[in-house]
Amino acid sequence: MTNLTPVRTAFYISDSTAITAETLGHSLLAQFEDVPFRQIRIPFVDSPEKAREAAQRINQAAREDGLRPLVFTTQVDPAVNGILRESDAFCMSLFEVFIAPLEAELGVKSTHTIGRSHSQTDSNTYQHRLEAINFALGHDDGVTMSGLDEASVILVGVSRCGKTPTSLYLAMQFGVKAANYPLIPEDFERGRLPEGLERYRDRLFGLTIEPVRLHQIRSERRPNSRYAALENCRQEVADAERLMRRENIRWLDSTSKSIEEISTTIMQEIDIHRHPF
Amino acid sequence: MTNLTPVRTAFYISDSTAITAETLGHSLLAQFEDVPFRQIRIPFVDSPEKAREAAQRINQAAREDGLRPLVFTTQVDPAVNGILRESDAFCMSLFEVFIAPLEAELGVKSTHTIGRSHSQTDSNTYQHRLEAINFALGHDDGVTMSGLDEASVILVGVSRCGKTPTSLYLAMQFGVKAANYPLIPEDFERGRLPEGLERYRDRLFGLTIEPVRLHQIRSERRPNSRYAALENCRQEVADAERLMRRENIRWLDSTSKSIEEISTTIMQEIDIHRHPF
Repeated sequence: MTNLTPVRTAFYISDSTAITAETLGHSLLAQFEDVPFRQIRIPFVDSPEKAREAAQRINQAAREDGLRPLVFTTQVDPAVNGILRESDAFCMSLFEVFIAPLEAELGVKSTHTIGRSHSQTDSNTYQHRLEAINFALGHDDGVTMSGLDEASVILVGVSRCGKTPTSLYLAMQFGVKAANYPLIPEDFERGRLPEGLERYRDRLFGLTIEPVRLHQIRSERRPNSRYAALENCRQEVADAERLMRRENIRWLDSTSKSIEEISTTIMQEIDIHRHPF
Repeated sequence: MTNLTPVRTAFYISDSTAITAETLGHSLLAQFEDVPFRQIRIPFVDSPEKAREAAQRINQAAREDGLRPLVFTTQVDPAVNGILRESDAFCMSLFEVFIAPLEAELGVKSTHTIGRSHSQTDSNTYQHRLEAINFALGHDDGVTMSGLDEASVILVGVSRCGKTPTSLYLAMQFGVKAANYPLIPEDFERGRLPEGLERYRDRLFGLTIEPVRLHQIRSERRPNSRYAALENCRQEVADAERLMRRENIRWLDSTSKSIEEISTTIMQEIDIHRHPF
């Protein structure tokens, strides 16, 4: 006999990466915060044979957990879906639920093509996304002013306030070209934006951060430095916020926000339309 | 009268970023490849007032398109869902469909908390993800051997075969620490892996690419260079594949695969378990 809360297994299964199934399942399970789950993604289940292998793993988890596993699937193939349904799982099939009503509403049959979501169906938009990633890497931390005309947004803020991960996420998820430029003590002394940035004022977006959090982040990088000192962090953040306020730059506090939330807010504020995938 | 195919609008709506709603909708609409859609994401719809604003945009699209818009939503709040349902849209609500059956299966009520999926609910795992992004940036293109012990995977391959975007995606999506290391002509002449990599053999994963595609990618970067010349690309790819085969390194061809597919395959092959979000 054990005092441990029994853990249920949640499987994310698809004929392709299963990333959509995982996103979906993760979002639903987040609504049951007191229930512990073990999460397993099984990608590339694109044949009855692989479906039977997946069903065996599901049944094994059912025996080991003593609880019926959950299956979230974006499986298109009815044969594969049928095999998963016969396993000892509680099966939530995204396509089975939504495709028939959509077909009725649109008045056309779906193509029932597997693995479309993350396949390179349109190599132009895919290319665009890779270019945006390269753009973010090539315009990180103010390394160059060259090519800034192409940027949809230029993030500014003190060192380590979240500019780089946000730029990369905007590129990776939305195909948006984002540059980022640090605000440093020299800018605060001059009381002006870094030279060359003023002409892009309508594309500037500021990030700020709680000084205590900034101190923690910088301390991991350079412990006991002046750069990481709490007093210096307080000063830099206050100076940066003063500069952004005076220059009328839109900004937000990144401290308690996820990269997704920061990126979404920026796109809304700057009114960037994502490159359509 | 117009000959243009009428375009229907698809809305992705949520109380948080609406990224999950968009992923869901995008995945479903990909099954209707001949139907043209205009896609609009409306995030942060977290009050009845914002829901009414969203409903107005939906109704306006209905009038302009002459077609009932589609709404994909991960809205939790029943009041907001009700307002969206009253708009002139075909509404697909992820939570309305799946939460009740999940509650029955799990035997507990959901917390009905808004914006949980992309909120910083667990700052440890969030921190882990940021660390993985910094790790990928700090171990890009073989800049350092220091800290490679921490890498879950080290990608190798010729310049511009997709190592950097893959490393960043592994970090961003899965919190997996991935380094990457270029294979260069000097390595092929020596006929050996770059010095210092051999001890990490079990974590190496190779990427290769069609020479013609490599030639295109490199030509954008350095037109008419020896680096980009088709003949040179052929040679480097052949040399790299020979080296990887001899060294028994697992590898895949990235040419016709998305970053998601490449990353998922790598995680399967190296048997990396993602850091649980």
